[in-house]
Amino acid sequence: MADLTLHEDPRSGNCYKIKLTAALVGLPLETRQYDILAGETRTPEFLGSVNPNGRIPVLQIGARFLPESNAACWYLAEGSPLIPGNRFDQADMLRWMFFEQYSHEPNIATMRFWLHFVGEAKLSPQQKAQMMAKRIAGCEALKLMDGHLAQSGWFVGDGPTLADIALFAYTHVAEDGGFALSDYPAVERWIERVKALPGFVAMA
Amino acid sequence: MADLTLHEDPRSGNCYKIKLTAALVGLPLETRQYDILAGETRTPEFLGSVNPNGRIPVLQIGARFLPESNAACWYLAEGSPLIPGNRFDQADMLRWMFFEQYSHEPNIATMRFWLHFVGEAKLSPQQKAQMMAKRIAGCEALKLMDGHLAQSGWFVGDGPTLADIALFAYTHVAEDGGFALSDYPAVERWIERVKALPGFVAMA
Repeated sequence: MADLTLHEDPRSGNCYKIKLTAALVGLPLETRQYDILAGETRTPEFLGSVNPNGRIPVLQIGARFLPESNAACWYLAEGSPLIPGNRFDQADMLRWMFFEQYSHEPNIATMRFWLHFVGEAKLSPQQKAQMMAKRIAGCEALKLMDGHLAQSGWFVGDGPTLADIALFAYTHVAEDGGFALSDYPAVERWIERVKALPGFVAMA
Repeated sequence: MADLTLHEDPRSGNCYKIKLTAALVGLPLETRQYDILAGETRTPEFLGSVNPNGRIPVLQIGARFLPESNAACWYLAEGSPLIPGNRFDQADMLRWMFFEQYSHEPNIATMRFWLHFVGEAKLSPQQKAQMMAKRIAGCEALKLMDGHLAQSGWFVGDGPTLADIALFAYTHVAEDGGFALSDYPAVERWIERVKALPGFVAMA
């Protein structure tokens, strides 16, 4: 395989997903760090050569660039047990990964970014006006996860898949965004199961 | 294959993606309609048996339920040319599908829903406060697509994939959300290419 380089900000859970996937499947990954808050992913050089969308993470595979965290996880995990072979299970895993990007990350990760890294005092009036809706939607996402995990040890099938990795990244640090994980006991137990996986690496 | 039923609201582009995929791969699909605006996907029956997330579309496969539009497209297209076999291209296709759900749909589809179906006069103050940000982010998504399509006929490789279907759904009706497609000429030409695909079906 071509050399793998992750263009990342170590504070980002979306970047962490990719490092956790690489660790679990045993692939070496170089990293190059950027400071999102300092605008380092909005420079002409970054937009021109790494990602025209101005976002990290981007997985560089040789001379090619792959944005979007969950797509990068898919690339790394191809052929491993982290992607189930069964047709329904594979689609169901993607279902949870799309849920993560649509219903979970924009609420839980954004609240964490605003409260833990930017600081509530520095938020714009437009951001402050969205906080209540994001708090409610984040709680709904955690409640949905808790209901599923009360019935099943993992999101899909009988073992860990990329669905667990994608959802773990921002869930295990949700308290940084003001969410109380003790309200979701099945989620708390699942977090411990993910942390106990062979090859697990912690977030920076 | 088990019987396929799409739980849908025909006004939804996310539902249309699935019908377009089924048509292009030649799979028969039953449909069952719900009115989102009347709360028909928030009833205890729907939440309990179809989708605890209270959203459509959901693809029913025999007795199993698969939420998330792009996951349903993946299920239907498995084994067809709409999913490239090459490892990078497959991940790159998912990259555009995650882009669609994260950077495109929440802006372009939401603006269309608010302006075309709810009506600007009925929006809440919180919704009105988000309109400018959604308009800007929607234009950025269309600009990114236009830049890519100025270099390439399709999003991934030399032919249509699920990336094109996912992005087509809300792009071709973006004017309902107040976006001017004439600002994105490569997108306009790509829309015509998608409409010319053998088996293409129009949105309801």
